[in-house]
Amino acid sequence: MKGFGAHTSMWAMVWTREGAENAVAAALRHSLDFIEIAMPDPSAIDAAHTRALLEKHRLASVCSLGLPERAWASVRPETAMEFLDAAIDKTADIGAQALSGVIFGGIGERTGLPPTEAEYDNITRVLQHASRRAKARGILLGIEPVNRYENHLINTGWQAVRMIERVGADNIFVHLDTYHMNIEEKGAANGILAAREHLKYIHLSESDRGTPGYGTCDWDEIFAALAAIRFVGGLAMESFINMPPEFAYGLAVWRPVAESEEEVMSKGLPFLRNKAQQYGLI
Amino acid sequence: MKGFGAHTSMWAMVWTREGAENAVAAALRHSLDFIEIAMPDPSAIDAAHTRALLEKHRLASVCSLGLPERAWASVRPETAMEFLDAAIDKTADIGAQALSGVIFGGIGERTGLPPTEAEYDNITRVLQHASRRAKARGILLGIEPVNRYENHLINTGWQAVRMIERVGADNIFVHLDTYHMNIEEKGAANGILAAREHLKYIHLSESDRGTPGYGTCDWDEIFAALAAIRFVGGLAMESFINMPPEFAYGLAVWRPVAESEEEVMSKGLPFLRNKAQQYGLI
Amino acid sequence: MKGFGAHTSMWAMVWTREGAENAVAAALRHSLDFIEIAMPDPSAIDAAHTRALLEKHRLASVCSLGLPERAWASVRPETAMEFLDAAIDKTADIGAQALSGVIFGGIGERTGLPPTEAEYDNITRVLQHASRRAKARGILLGIEPVNRYENHLINTGWQAVRMIERVGADNIFVHLDTYHMNIEEKGAANGILAAREHLKYIHLSESDRGTPGYGTCDWDEIFAALAAIRFVGGLAMESFINMPPEFAYGLAVWRPVAESEEEVMSKGLPFLRNKAQQYGLI
Amino acid sequence: MKGFGAHTSMWAMVWTREGAENAVAAALRHSLDFIEIAMPDPSAIDAAHTRALLEKHRLASVCSLGLPERAWASVRPETAMEFLDAAIDKTADIGAQALSGVIFGGIGERTGLPPTEAEYDNITRVLQHASRRAKARGILLGIEPVNRYENHLINTGWQAVRMIERVGADNIFVHLDTYHMNIEEKGAANGILAAREHLKYIHLSESDRGTPGYGTCDWDEIFAALAAIRFVGGLAMESFINMPPEFAYGLAVWRPVAESEEEVMSKGLPFLRNKAQQYGLI
Repeated sequence: MKGFGAHTSMWAMVWTREGAENAVAAALRHSLDFIEIAMPDPSAIDAAHTRALLEKHRLASVCSLGLPERAWASVRPETAMEFLDAAIDKTADIGAQALSGVIFGGIGERTGLPPTEAEYDNITRVLQHASRRAKARGILLGIEPVNRYENHLINTGWQAVRMIERVGADNIFVHLDTYHMNIEEKGAANGILAAREHLKYIHLSESDRGTPGYGTCDWDEIFAALAAIRFVGGLAMESFINMPPEFAYGLAVWRPVAESEEEVMSKGLPFLRNKAQQYGLI
Repeated sequence: MKGFGAHTSMWAMVWTREGAENAVAAALRHSLDFIEIAMPDPSAIDAAHTRALLEKHRLASVCSLGLPERAWASVRPETAMEFLDAAIDKTADIGAQALSGVIFGGIGERTGLPPTEAEYDNITRVLQHASRRAKARGILLGIEPVNRYENHLINTGWQAVRMIERVGADNIFVHLDTYHMNIEEKGAANGILAAREHLKYIHLSESDRGTPGYGTCDWDEIFAALAAIRFVGGLAMESFINMPPEFAYGLAVWRPVAESEEEVMSKGLPFLRNKAQQYGLI
Repeated sequence: MKGFGAHTSMWAMVWTREGAENAVAAALRHSLDFIEIAMPDPSAIDAAHTRALLEKHRLASVCSLGLPERAWASVRPETAMEFLDAAIDKTADIGAQALSGVIFGGIGERTGLPPTEAEYDNITRVLQHASRRAKARGILLGIEPVNRYENHLINTGWQAVRMIERVGADNIFVHLDTYHMNIEEKGAANGILAAREHLKYIHLSESDRGTPGYGTCDWDEIFAALAAIRFVGGLAMESFINMPPEFAYGLAVWRPVAESEEEVMSKGLPFLRNKAQQYGLI
Repeated sequence: MKGFGAHTSMWAMVWTREGAENAVAAALRHSLDFIEIAMPDPSAIDAAHTRALLEKHRLASVCSLGLPERAWASVRPETAMEFLDAAIDKTADIGAQALSGVIFGGIGERTGLPPTEAEYDNITRVLQHASRRAKARGILLGIEPVNRYENHLINTGWQAVRMIERVGADNIFVHLDTYHMNIEEKGAANGILAAREHLKYIHLSESDRGTPGYGTCDWDEIFAALAAIRFVGGLAMESFINMPPEFAYGLAVWRPVAESEEEVMSKGLPFLRNKAQQYGLI
C-alpha cells in the first residue's frame, strides 16, 4: 500500500464483474496507484476475474469490510473468525495486499454502553486467529477506528493501537479515516500522532463524506502530520456518491453530499493531490 | 437570548431542585448571562422553584429537549403536539425565553431512508400548532439541526430555514450547534451563512463534545462568520461531562471527552470568550 | 468591479502594447471577468491601445499603483496630487473602473516611527483632491492597506476605513489584500469585518505571494467572511512570478515563490474559484 | 533548551541590572523554564550579575541578537567574527545555553537583490569561526530565518538547514519563529518539516507579533508538526509590547499589537500552554 488510491464505491456499488471493470477503468483514467474494494460478502466476489483484471493493469488493491451483525466479534467470536477466514482467503485470492476496515465489529454496532473488557477480549481472540490466517496467506490486516455512532468499540487511533498491542501480532496496522478523525480526535492530527509507525493506510474522506477539500477537515494539519511522521502507506480518497442500500443505516447519509462523481474527481482529487504534494508526501 | 451562557448538563444531570441550585450557583460563579435547561420530561420540573431561583439571581434561561420516541413528530404528530404543549407551558412557567433543540423529532430517530414529504408534512403541522401555543405563552421556539446519526430529518442550517419557511411562523428561530455543523456543513461557516437572520442561538460545542478549543472545530471561521452576519443571539457553551443515561445511546459518547468540569471551565470557557472577543462578538 | 480577475504582472512585467496583448489573451484564456493593470508610470501607457483591446474583448479593468518616492503624499502632497491627477486621467482614458493600491504613499515608505497626524493630514488633502478629480472623470479610488514593512501609514482595514472617513468622499473604497491581512489583522477575517460595506476589491494573494491555496492564508475564513458581509466587488488573484526590478526592494521577494505561471493558473486559480464557489461567492 | 520560556523584551527593554531583575521575577511568576535575553550590545551586559540571578533561581537562558550593520557577516566578515566572539563569550559568562537569532546578518539587511554565493561564502566563514569559539566555550549557536523584509539571506527553515550543512559544524541548530514562518513557509508546518532534527528552539510569536492565539498563525498545525517530529527543544513565547527604539525600523511595528503585558500573559501564555498540552508537547 503506497501512493494515491481511491475507494471504488463511486464506480461500483456492488463488486460484480461489470462493477470491477468500471472501477478499474476509472482508476486508470485517474492514474491511481491502487484501489480499495468493499467486500461486504466475500463469497460474492469472483476472485479470479478481479485478480486477472488487476494484474493486467498492474493495479494494487486493498479489500475492506465491516462485519455483519451475525458475525460481530465482540459477541459472536466464532462466527467472526469464520467470516474473516473467508474474507482473508478471498483477499489473498484477489492478490490484494490487505484486508482492512471495521474488521473488529459492525458498522452500526452499539450497545448503548461503553466498551467492556469482555467485548475487547472476544475481539482480541478473533484478531489473533485472523492475524495467523492472514500471515499464512501473505496479507496484512488493518483496523479502522470509526466514529462513536458507527461503533462503540474503537473510535480513535489510540484505541486501535491498544488493540494491536493486545493482539500482539506484527501484521496488523492502523487504518485511519479523516472523516472519523474529524469527530473523534483532539485535533486533526492527534490520531496520526497516536498511530505513528502503526499507520499504514488512511482514508482521505471529507467531513460530510462529500468532495474532499470542501468541508471542515483541516487538510493542512493532516498532511503536515503525515509528512512529519514520515508516513509511507496508502492514501485512499473516499467519497460517498453511490450508497449501497445495505450500508445506508450504518453510514447515515440521507442527502447527496457531492454533486456527482465528476465533481469529486475534478475538484476533490486534484485538491488532495496538490495538498499532498505541498507537504512533500507525493 | 444574548451574551454568553452554558448548557447545564455539566452541573445537573437531572433538573431536580438540588440540580437547579447547583447549576445556578455554577452559572453565577462563571458570570454567565443565561443557562440552558434540558427538559426531557417537562412534568418532572418544579417550575415555581426554578423561576424563583432564576429571578432572584437575574439569570436568563432557555429550555431544550428532543422528543421521546412515543412523540416523534414525523410519525405521531398528535402526541408530539401534546408533548410540546406541556413543554411550552413549563418553559413559560419557568420564565425561560425559548424552547429549543430537536423539537421536531427524536435524538436517535432514523428510518434508514432519506426524509419523506409525509414526514416533513407531519412535522410542519406539529410546529404550526406549537408556534401558536408558544406565541400565546410569549416564548420563542428553536429548531436545532443535528447530525445524520442523531436524526435523518434536519441536519443542516439550510434544512432548518426551509422548515421555518414551511411552517410560516415568525416565532421560530434556527439554533445551530458547532459539533453538528462540523459534520454536516460544507465549511465551518456555511450553516451560519444559510441561517443568517434566522439564527438566534448557537451551541458552542467542540468536535468531540469535550473541552471547547481543543478539538477540530474551526473556531476562527465560526466566530468570524457570526460577527460578519451581525449575530446577536445567545452563545451557549455545551460540553458533555455527565451523560444522563437516557441520552447515552442517542448521543453516543462512550468515553470521557473531557477530563473534568474544571478543565472545561478553566480552559474551554476562557478559550471561547477570548475568541468571541477577538472577533468583536462580546 | 465584480467577478473573478487577476493582477497582470504574471503576463506583463511592463504594460507595453505587447505586454497588454499578452495579458489580455491570458485573461481570456482563463475566463477572467477583469484584469488589474499596474501603472507605476502613467505616462508610459498607451491608453487608446489598451482601451481598444479591452473594449474589443469586453474585459473590465482596474489600474493600480504605489506612489514613487518623489510623490509620497505624507511629505510631498503637491507632487502626489499631480502624480495622481495623471494616473486618474490615464485610468479614465483606458476605460478602467478604478485606480487603486497604495495611492496614499509608497511601497517601501517607512520613517522608522509611528504615523503622525501631520502625515495623515497631508494624505487627507491629497486624497480629497484626488477624489474630486476621480469623480469628474467617473472612476473610483481604492485604498490598499499594506503590511508594516511596505508602509507605516495604513496597515489594516480599520485604518483604511478611518482614512476614508477623514477624507469624507463617497468614491473611495477599501481594497484589501490577503497577503497583507495575514500579517496585520487579528484573525484572517478581521480586516473584512472592519471594512464591510467599504470593501469593493480584494487581492487574493497567498501568504508568500506564491500559488494561492498552498501557503498559510486561511482561505475558508476569508471566503466565509466575504460571503457573510455579502461582498459584491472584485476578486483579484495576485501572484508574483515576474518581479519588475523597480518593485523588488519594496516587495522583497528574493526567491521564486511559485514554480511557474502554469502552476499558478493550473493549481491556484482553480483552488480560489472552487473555494469561492463553496461559500457561494461566485 | 527545553520546556516553556519567553523572550524578555516584555519586561526589560534594555538588559540593565534592574531590567534583569524585573524579567527574572516575571519569569518566575509565570513558571517559565527559561528566558531569552536580547543582546544587541554584548559589552553592555553585566554577566556576573545575570549569572548569579539565574543560578539563584535555577532559571535556564538563551541569548539572542541580530548583527549591527557594521558587522554584517555577508559584507564585513572580519568585524562579524569579532562581534560574535564577544557575544559568545558573554553568553558563556552568563551561563546561557546558546547564542541564537539573526547571527548571520542584520535585522533590516537587504541589498534589493537575491542572495549571492559571495554573501553566503562570507557568512559560512563567519559561522565556521563562531562555531569553533562556541564549542570552546561550551555553548550552542542558533540560526533564525526571518522574513523577506527583515533580511534577504535566510528566510526559510530549508535555507537555515542548507547553511548549517555548508558550515559543517555540529553545534549549530535551527531556530524557527512562527511569525516569520507565517510569511515565508508553504504551509504552517513546512519550516518544521524542513528543519526536523536540526530544530532545537522555536519562537512562538503571533502573526502580528501581538498576543499569541489571536492572530492568523495556525497553531494546531504548528504544534501537531512539532509533536510529530518529536521536538524536544525550547518553546519561547515572543510578543512585542515594548519596542526598543533601535529595533523599531527593522521590526516595523508602528502600533500597539497587544493591549498590555497583562493581556499577553493572561490570554496568550495559557493559549500556547494549552495547545502545547493538547498535542502532547508539555
